[in-house]
Amino acid sequence: MELTQDTRTAILAAARELMFESGFDRTTMRGIAERAGVSLGNAYYYFAGKDDLIQGIYDEVAAEHQVRTRAAVRGKRGLGPRITASLLVLVDICDEYEPVADALLTRGIAPRGPLNPFSRESARARELFIETCTELVEGSRGRIDAELRAALPELLWLVQLATTLGWVQDLSEGKVATRRSVERLGTTLGRVVSLSRVPAVRPLVRVLLEQLADLHVARPGWAEL
Amino acid sequence: MELTQDTRTAILAAARELMFESGFDRTTMRGIAERAGVSLGNAYYYFAGKDDLIQGIYDEVAAEHQVRTRAAVRGKRGLGPRITASLLVLVDICDEYEPVADALLTRGIAPRGPLNPFSRESARARELFIETCTELVEGSRGRIDAELRAALPELLWLVQLATTLGWVQDLSEGKVATRRSVERLGTTLGRVVSLSRVPAVRPLVRVLLEQLADLHVARPGWAEL
Repeated sequence: MELTQDTRTAILAAARELMFESGFDRTTMRGIAERAGVSLGNAYYYFAGKDDLIQGIYDEVAAEHQVRTRAAVRGKRGLGPRITASLLVLVDICDEYEPVADALLTRGIAPRGPLNPFSRESARARELFIETCTELVEGSRGRIDAELRAALPELLWLVQLATTLGWVQDLSEGKVATRRSVERLGTTLGRVVSLSRVPAVRPLVRVLLEQLADLHVARPGWAEL
Repeated sequence: MELTQDTRTAILAAARELMFESGFDRTTMRGIAERAGVSLGNAYYYFAGKDDLIQGIYDEVAAEHQVRTRAAVRGKRGLGPRITASLLVLVDICDEYEPVADALLTRGIAPRGPLNPFSRESARARELFIETCTELVEGSRGRIDAELRAALPELLWLVQLATTLGWVQDLSEGKVATRRSVERLGTTLGRVVSLSRVPAVRPLVRVLLEQLADLHVARPGWAEL
């Protein structure tokens, strides 16, 4: 079992290396197997193909995001700073995957593709990301409207998706625009959530929850998980 | 001149027909020229290639959206209902382009591609869409914070982009989730804008304008136009 995990991890590491060197399209399962020092058959034993392999990389990214976010939010109790820290970790990880970002975006955005973040196949990475978002909320002080609190992890995951999309589209040097935007966004979301129990703000919270409910209608596979 | 416009329009119509019949990838410039009854050289005289042709279709879509939005908002004075009407027109147009939606999304989302909505090449369609959004604001009653009012056309265009992305991702029958979501969104945006002059809401307006400024930093080509 331990060895099995090692082989799997080695294949994923080889895939990442090759994709960063030669680009997504020129990376083949054969090349990955060679780089990892395993037979092609063995590589296919672990991964059904390139898409499945990317899914494995997504899982690793989600786990990495969780570990680094936990470290980044340590000692931070305000929801705003916690969200900001988590989004900045995400942006840093995006930077590291820059060489394959466009290819992954093109595949991830396909509505019925297995790499779409709402797909059944993406369940594991999605659950990890949402778990991290749950921890952002649970570890924060300040009272939150109960219904909003329950929906907040999913909403924050959607903010992560939007951030990733914004990062890809950002052509500014060092992605400064995304970084500044994400810091402002975290602070603002923290403030807005803290107002969620103010009677005048309740109707807006209601609308937000209804929008989220419609997203579950739009992507039923996600709701079933 | 009149004849030139006719030929151009005929080529675009042929391109649309062929793409709807055979899909984006299997549609060639040669096939389009044949269907339009012009020589291949003539087709290339009007359009440098498929991407340029798609740009021509985008321009037509933006013009169509403008005409149909003008009709849909006639007599509506509230900003919310006007936004909703305009978004529902957009969703209807998306429905009509469903056969090629995935292909257009994949090309449009590429950050440095000519079909990206922020690209220099997309300037004409973008300007038309933003012009339509300006009319939505200008034709509405109710006072709006001056700075927000100036930025609102661009912000509403971003809402249109988000709606298009949401529409593509929506797997619900008849895109009911998007339609319901868009109606709710229009109403809500109308209300939020009407609150923009309330002192407590000003800081949020400020944040929104700063986010928009960062988008201009992220996509400098857009700002230069």
